[in-house]
Amino acid sequence: MSEPRRSVRDLLRVPAGGTGFDLGAIHPRTTPGLPRAGVVGTDPKAWARARVQEIGVELGRQQEMLFASAKVDPASGRRLLLVLQAMDAGGKDGTIRRVAGTMNPLGLQIRSFGRPTEKELSHHFLWRIRRALPTPGYVGVFNRSHYEDVLVPRVESLVPEHTWRARYDEINEFEQELADGGVTLLKVFLHISYDEQLERLRSRLDDPEKHWKYEPADVDTRARWADYQAAYAEALARCSTSGSPWFVVPANRKWYRDWAVASLLRETFAGMHLTYPAPRFDVDRERRRLLDMRPEPAEV
Amino acid sequence: MSEPRRSVRDLLRVPAGGTGFDLGAIHPRTTPGLPRAGVVGTDPKAWARARVQEIGVELGRQQEMLFASAKVDPASGRRLLLVLQAMDAGGKDGTIRRVAGTMNPLGLQIRSFGRPTEKELSHHFLWRIRRALPTPGYVGVFNRSHYEDVLVPRVESLVPEHTWRARYDEINEFEQELADGGVTLLKVFLHISYDEQLERLRSRLDDPEKHWKYEPADVDTRARWADYQAAYAEALARCSTSGSPWFVVPANRKWYRDWAVASLLRETFAGMHLTYPAPRFDVDRERRRLLDMRPEPAEV
Repeated sequence: MSEPRRSVRDLLRVPAGGTGFDLGAIHPRTTPGLPRAGVVGTDPKAWARARVQEIGVELGRQQEMLFASAKVDPASGRRLLLVLQAMDAGGKDGTIRRVAGTMNPLGLQIRSFGRPTEKELSHHFLWRIRRALPTPGYVGVFNRSHYEDVLVPRVESLVPEHTWRARYDEINEFEQELADGGVTLLKVFLHISYDEQLERLRSRLDDPEKHWKYEPADVDTRARWADYQAAYAEALARCSTSGSPWFVVPANRKWYRDWAVASLLRETFAGMHLTYPAPRFDVDRERRRLLDMRPEPAEV
Repeated sequence: MSEPRRSVRDLLRVPAGGTGFDLGAIHPRTTPGLPRAGVVGTDPKAWARARVQEIGVELGRQQEMLFASAKVDPASGRRLLLVLQAMDAGGKDGTIRRVAGTMNPLGLQIRSFGRPTEKELSHHFLWRIRRALPTPGYVGVFNRSHYEDVLVPRVESLVPEHTWRARYDEINEFEQELADGGVTLLKVFLHISYDEQLERLRSRLDDPEKHWKYEPADVDTRARWADYQAAYAEALARCSTSGSPWFVVPANRKWYRDWAVASLLRETFAGMHLTYPAPRFDVDRERRRLLDMRPEPAEV
């Protein structure tokens, strides 16, 4: 199956350096990197769903090599951490279910960050993040993250501007520290439109089985849409670094979103150059020990 | 699709009461509860694999109702905890991948218990277990568990007999306490034969991509096979209670094992009588708030 010429990482990366990034110029209904119609066929949704399953097999293999490597060499600290951010109803949960769900749950560590507790607020904003980092060898997923702390407090004026503004540098230093500790970060913003959010919130109200997903506070947040978009735009620009870039995934179309996130994961894994580790035992000797063993022994 | 007449729980349950249970009488290659050949067709493996996917859809729905219920009523403490025990190469990891992997990873909490650390050994044997319990609303999976503490210390003579023997009652009391706290336990022993273990360990040695799964200590443990079987038999019998029974899944055939564990999960969920919770907000009022909102607001 032919692949897009440019990597999905290249197509969706927010330029490092903090200037000239325009989130509003990225249309949430586009499908960057999707192969041409001749490859995708007449049903791009079906194509993408099938491709996510195929990519998932490769992700599972990479995840296993990561797990195996860390088992043999825990000091390397190697792990992958997918950070997902989005407006309400932006598709974080669905992405986790459909994309992370293709991997082995045994090697996944998923953490969701809600409104900080009293205890969390009494600590530095990165305190709860550090405690939730994946164990070496695992694929972590952050469902929201430390980026909430440059979004909500800014828009809701919970802290002075100099406080949230200082957090961009703190985050960049923190993420450098993570990289030094073996953590490969993949930061993804799922970008939906204002109209798409309306449709999704309405469908939650229309379906009794989705009522539990609806929060009246979502409408209050929606009323600050433009402020949140501005806060996101600055956070993505200020914290997209060469070592730890941000990626913006147009996410109105769920099938494209899933394909793009799966592709980003695949490319990120490929950049880690993982292999199955060499055994730390003598294979032939172990085979002899095993095969020379007497028949089923009786109870001692 | 027709279902077996008796529930899989009834067929695989270890009788409560602690007497008369004979683990050796359960053959690891049998397939209790599998529908008759007319239903399964000529390829029972393909049938079982397809059925696990179908059951997985239902498990995902039940899991979502559990999650939604706990979100609305966290005080209920309701959660499901699958405890998996087996001899080395018994299939715990594969079961998690294939069966738990059909559920939403966002609602899963998987914990693996290895050899206790120095710190864990300095505490009561249930200390590390209590810390690893799933959050209300989640499906937990224990990959090994507190049952290790009536197996390894007994066979390896790490503690006096009266110490490990007292643990049966401690475990039964602990599990009653869990039930009182909203935890529905599903305890499953994956039962493989001595010969099947040989084949699986040998295949790990024969495949360089599986070397990382092999531990030389597994052969030492294998040499104590009969002692471990006896320790399992007593633990299963002593700790199979009417409130929290043990289930023995014949596990030489992986496809049967996965189908049986998926079926046990389905029946266990069914016994929890979960529903989607009623909304805690006025749906019509929320719909008006949402639809009355002005077009995309400008940045404030």
